[in-house]
Amino acid sequence: MISEKMTELGLKSSVIRELFEYGNKRKAEIGEENVFDFSLGNPSVPAPQKVNQIMLKLLTEKDPVTLHGYTSAAGAMSVRKAMADSINKSFKVNATPDLIYMTCGAAASLTITLNALLNTGDEVIVLAPYFPEYKVFIEKAGGIVRVVKCRDGDFQIDFNALEKAINKNTKAIIVNSPNNPSGVVLSEETIITLSKLLNKKSQELNTDIYIISDEPYRELVYCDIKVPYIPEYYDNAVVCYSFSKSLSLPGERIGYIFVSPKVKEAKILFAAVCGAGRALGYVCAPSLLQYTVAELVGETADIQVYKHNRDLLVKALTNYGYTVAKPDGAFYLFVKSPERDATSFSERAKKYELLLVPSDSFGYEGYVRLSYCVSTKMIEKSLPQFKKLMDEYR
Amino acid sequence: MISEKMTELGLKSSVIRELFEYGNKRKAEIGEENVFDFSLGNPSVPAPQKVNQIMLKLLTEKDPVTLHGYTSAAGAMSVRKAMADSINKSFKVNATPDLIYMTCGAAASLTITLNALLNTGDEVIVLAPYFPEYKVFIEKAGGIVRVVKCRDGDFQIDFNALEKAINKNTKAIIVNSPNNPSGVVLSEETIITLSKLLNKKSQELNTDIYIISDEPYRELVYCDIKVPYIPEYYDNAVVCYSFSKSLSLPGERIGYIFVSPKVKEAKILFAAVCGAGRALGYVCAPSLLQYTVAELVGETADIQVYKHNRDLLVKALTNYGYTVAKPDGAFYLFVKSPERDATSFSERAKKYELLLVPSDSFGYEGYVRLSYCVSTKMIEKSLPQFKKLMDEYR
Repeated sequence: MISEKMTELGLKSSVIRELFEYGNKRKAEIGEENVFDFSLGNPSVPAPQKVNQIMLKLLTEKDPVTLHGYTSAAGAMSVRKAMADSINKSFKVNATPDLIYMTCGAAASLTITLNALLNTGDEVIVLAPYFPEYKVFIEKAGGIVRVVKCRDGDFQIDFNALEKAINKNTKAIIVNSPNNPSGVVLSEETIITLSKLLNKKSQELNTDIYIISDEPYRELVYCDIKVPYIPEYYDNAVVCYSFSKSLSLPGERIGYIFVSPKVKEAKILFAAVCGAGRALGYVCAPSLLQYTVAELVGETADIQVYKHNRDLLVKALTNYGYTVAKPDGAFYLFVKSPERDATSFSERAKKYELLLVPSDSFGYEGYVRLSYCVSTKMIEKSLPQFKKLMDEYR
Repeated sequence: MISEKMTELGLKSSVIRELFEYGNKRKAEIGEENVFDFSLGNPSVPAPQKVNQIMLKLLTEKDPVTLHGYTSAAGAMSVRKAMADSINKSFKVNATPDLIYMTCGAAASLTITLNALLNTGDEVIVLAPYFPEYKVFIEKAGGIVRVVKCRDGDFQIDFNALEKAINKNTKAIIVNSPNNPSGVVLSEETIITLSKLLNKKSQELNTDIYIISDEPYRELVYCDIKVPYIPEYYDNAVVCYSFSKSLSLPGERIGYIFVSPKVKEAKILFAAVCGAGRALGYVCAPSLLQYTVAELVGETADIQVYKHNRDLLVKALTNYGYTVAKPDGAFYLFVKSPERDATSFSERAKKYELLLVPSDSFGYEGYVRLSYCVSTKMIEKSLPQFKKLMDEYR
């Protein structure tokens, strides 16, 4: 009688969540320090001290009626201006405040964008491995999910497969680089080829295909690597940004949508974004957080810890004989399962108290995801276990 | 090509918003102090000092990784417990934390509840005059709006009209008391009669009909009047609460959904609430705000200002010959238009720089809404204008 789909979504735990809960049970049994939980992507590094300093300043100095009051639905103009300025400082895209819409984090950025773009039956392409909530968000917005698998090994886009998947119903493709779960960054060459293909197909099919760039991990890259900014390469682009990971504020729910000024009829799409935000119940993004991030653009939490964790893991695991995807960004490592079935490998890993998420949950077989946003001490202690686990396969 | 419905929602300003913007223009022309803007329901009273004190304490004392970290989707357990305790302190309903879902404010509470309950084509009854966004929320959730007009004069429910509107597709009725825009509180007698009617019709039609109680104004009542708590009277009840008005925190987006334990299969409905929150992109309610309101249950902003404003307006307007709806709560006064067409009356009021929202926007003819969450000084200065306006009709 009530919505069956919503009930099912509420009742069905994700594999990640199940593993995390198994971990909690195990920790109670054998002690927290003896369980090596790589399941969740929850930042372990605290927010930079500046976050709290700015909040304290706002709370003591700003008029409370303004500070805690409604902003316009798209966000306070001063905040939207700060976002546009920060984008223009890094990229050549002519961002303007009137195309910035402040949101309650990345998930809200995505649901609002999808509801603005999609009509019932429109198709959205996701590149596997992919964040499993994409499917939930697309289907709730009336869309149909088309999965295109990335190339095994380097996890760049398989353009033959992509071209076959595009048809006249294709409305958008979600790009997530640095990627959850693989940690891979899509190369400039990949983005250029993608843009060419989408332009060609748009013309052939006489349609508009949008790239939705989901960028919660943009700042989390560890070498001198460049993460191409999609609106510099492709016109019909919408950026979904979040401060959750870069500033370690995942519970506070703050991010934004940026509609590229080069989108065909960008102002109309922006109006649809406003309409979708309204219809989904997002009145405005939390005001204190809006004013806070406006003063923090360009800052990040101390990501050196993540870099150190990554280097430690990559070096040791490679040494033990594991194969890992090129670990350029985010805080995930995608490790090839030594046996074909990643779920069976993940089960075996439990013997050594290692909690690794099998990649099937991300629409890809044969890998496990390790979240290395954990304490370095835990990683150090876990390494001999990884060695013993691999020894089983020798 | 993109969603036309969402574009239309984004482009179409509400009458309230248009009036507010006209006011801003007028203020620039003749000076802020000469425009009497009663258009917006934006609290003018600051949040109680305790709000900022608690935020400062949390920011300086609580571990930042927890304070700003993800809570579970339904909210931090300690927060949900505080909400349940506060409900149980005031009402006999046996609230439990496992049936509390923390939200980003009242609008989110409503969209999540509606998406949890509705299947495509289900009908939801709204009692006119009603908050216009109800229509947007219901239709986006796949539902059909059925408007039932309240009795002219006392604005209690017209049970003949309501009974005629109920059919086998009726899934829910939204009750909003104290009411926006009328300021009227539904009496205990009304709620008892409503419960009896819904029970009778549920049995007759072999269906479940839910009451969704939208309660952002619960604490804003000015005499010794009792606002009946729906779950004490009717089993299939869901409460949508918000701290926006009671604590003057409308920009911060914090509230909750409470599924009454007497709902048939309450745990299943709660799962659907979790599923809907997930599908709409609500990962969790802002964490700092969750922890803040948990320490503030039972507090309100200084509503004596509103009471004073109300008394001042009611006394003067009645004196001048206006008729007003019984002004029990919220911060709205519903004033009968001296001419049949409220829009024409609202236009005429502009001559005297009085900005009054015509009731047609709320699905009801012949009234204007005054928001008296404004400065007392502005009200005092506006009174001679109201007198002159009425003199035109003598």
